[in-house]
Amino acid sequence: MSLLAVGTLGYDTIETATERREDVLGGSATHFAMAASLFGKLGLVSIVGQDFQRVHLDLLRARGVDVGGVEIAPGETFRWTGRYGDDWNSRTTIETRLNVLARFDPVIPDAFRTAKFIFLANATPAVQAKVLDQVEKPEFTMLDTMNLWIETARADLMHLLRRVDAIVLNDEEARMLTGQRNLIRAAGGVLGLGPRYVVLKKGEHGAFLFGGDTHFSLPAYPVEQVVDPTGAGDSFAGGFMGYLAETGRVDPKNLRKAMLYGTVAASFCVQGFGVDSLVGRSRKDLDARYDELMSIVTV
Amino acid sequence: MSLLAVGTLGYDTIETATERREDVLGGSATHFAMAASLFGKLGLVSIVGQDFQRVHLDLLRARGVDVGGVEIAPGETFRWTGRYGDDWNSRTTIETRLNVLARFDPVIPDAFRTAKFIFLANATPAVQAKVLDQVEKPEFTMLDTMNLWIETARADLMHLLRRVDAIVLNDEEARMLTGQRNLIRAAGGVLGLGPRYVVLKKGEHGAFLFGGDTHFSLPAYPVEQVVDPTGAGDSFAGGFMGYLAETGRVDPKNLRKAMLYGTVAASFCVQGFGVDSLVGRSRKDLDARYDELMSIVTV
Repeated sequence: MSLLAVGTLGYDTIETATERREDVLGGSATHFAMAASLFGKLGLVSIVGQDFQRVHLDLLRARGVDVGGVEIAPGETFRWTGRYGDDWNSRTTIETRLNVLARFDPVIPDAFRTAKFIFLANATPAVQAKVLDQVEKPEFTMLDTMNLWIETARADLMHLLRRVDAIVLNDEEARMLTGQRNLIRAAGGVLGLGPRYVVLKKGEHGAFLFGGDTHFSLPAYPVEQVVDPTGAGDSFAGGFMGYLAETGRVDPKNLRKAMLYGTVAASFCVQGFGVDSLVGRSRKDLDARYDELMSIVTV
Repeated sequence: MSLLAVGTLGYDTIETATERREDVLGGSATHFAMAASLFGKLGLVSIVGQDFQRVHLDLLRARGVDVGGVEIAPGETFRWTGRYGDDWNSRTTIETRLNVLARFDPVIPDAFRTAKFIFLANATPAVQAKVLDQVEKPEFTMLDTMNLWIETARADLMHLLRRVDAIVLNDEEARMLTGQRNLIRAAGGVLGLGPRYVVLKKGEHGAFLFGGDTHFSLPAYPVEQVVDPTGAGDSFAGGFMGYLAETGRVDPKNLRKAMLYGTVAASFCVQGFGVDSLVGRSRKDLDARYDELMSIVTV
């Protein structure tokens, strides 16, 4: 198993300007895995409650996701309810029920400990650190985080940043972490905190990749109709890490291609609720849109 | 003379979060010409008052701009006062004094009438149409406009759109013109109104080029410190049209390169007040930053 992801499986209730859906399969690990599994097998470590539907684990298994690291604990699965504004630029969290996630203490199965590529989806820095404590010499680890941990667990996060190869952030998080308004300066500031690479996501405005040896800027894939942006960032990470793990190489050229695959995976994600629009996609679909994006960005 | 620009010469008073400058040389034609003249000679048609400083005409002449079409009329030069918010995303017009511009009735000198490339900077659609009436078989005409004309001179503008090859718009203008919120759809809508190409500017988020035969998306050049964004759009147009006029070819490949040159010219513009940061630049500076931008966007 060359790719390991540790994150959340959950159910989301999502309100957009035109629709409301209840208990949609979601969570960072779900979106990541549905995107990354288009490139090959991966191992998943997470926790769910006894209400988590068997059919949802089967969905992941059918895509080559090894769910052997998913603990089924007494209690209810993580739930999130959120609402999007008219133009998708504002998202309000209405309710977060951690449920079993509150006692998530990740145990990495032996078969996953030698994974070369590791994605630490958003969780407390303490939980993320426990994952790193259990793996052996990974080649490339990427961290996601959120404003809450930047505010409430800053010291833990700073320590963790010195242990990972890359971090994926949105513009607001990069500004919070560094105090720099200008995104170029913010990205430089984040690099100074430890990681070799920073991936800065700007939603509909694309993404940057910054590193000592590379600076790459990519617009988003032009989606005509966004249905639900939930999980776009984790789908991006799934496409990005899935491609790196498949090729096994981390160099500037491959990282740039990985940015395109991440962008394509995110573009599929936003075209449906939850993972609806990723479920039916094949590697062939992904590659077709990759080629299209390439033609749009090639000078 | 292969390139002709018709637009405004004026004096701007600009307030940013940190500075205030009075009577800075500005106007659409000034910014356009300072960028386009890095590629070669061009002809300028405009109107100024008797207070317009000789040194400013000399500045343009020194860059190879033929100011033979600039009428010096009794009265005062066009003046604009504006204020930018903290994050540059909001701009408030405090005062606009049209002065001599109110009676601008462009007369195109004979030497300019055979220009193959024509830029119609922001003006009433009626004034812009008068320019087209006086030129002979241009190869490529590009139009700029603003929200005011979309609202108050819509019929004239619609008619004009069927007479030009390209239009350059910002995101807000594209939405107003088409009623489409999604920018991809808005751009498609604008194409349906007549022009072969639409250039959609998104400020710090880059620009799109749409046409029947091409779709190109380009991030902005990463400027660490913006000093004054006034004129960025016209500088973009100057770099874009300057390159096309220099090469004499309008094909998808060349249009994409023109988008990069436009982006580079705009990036220089925002690094100083008015045209301060464009004045000292050479073609060599432009090409160096073009190469840098190319390395940032190449997969």
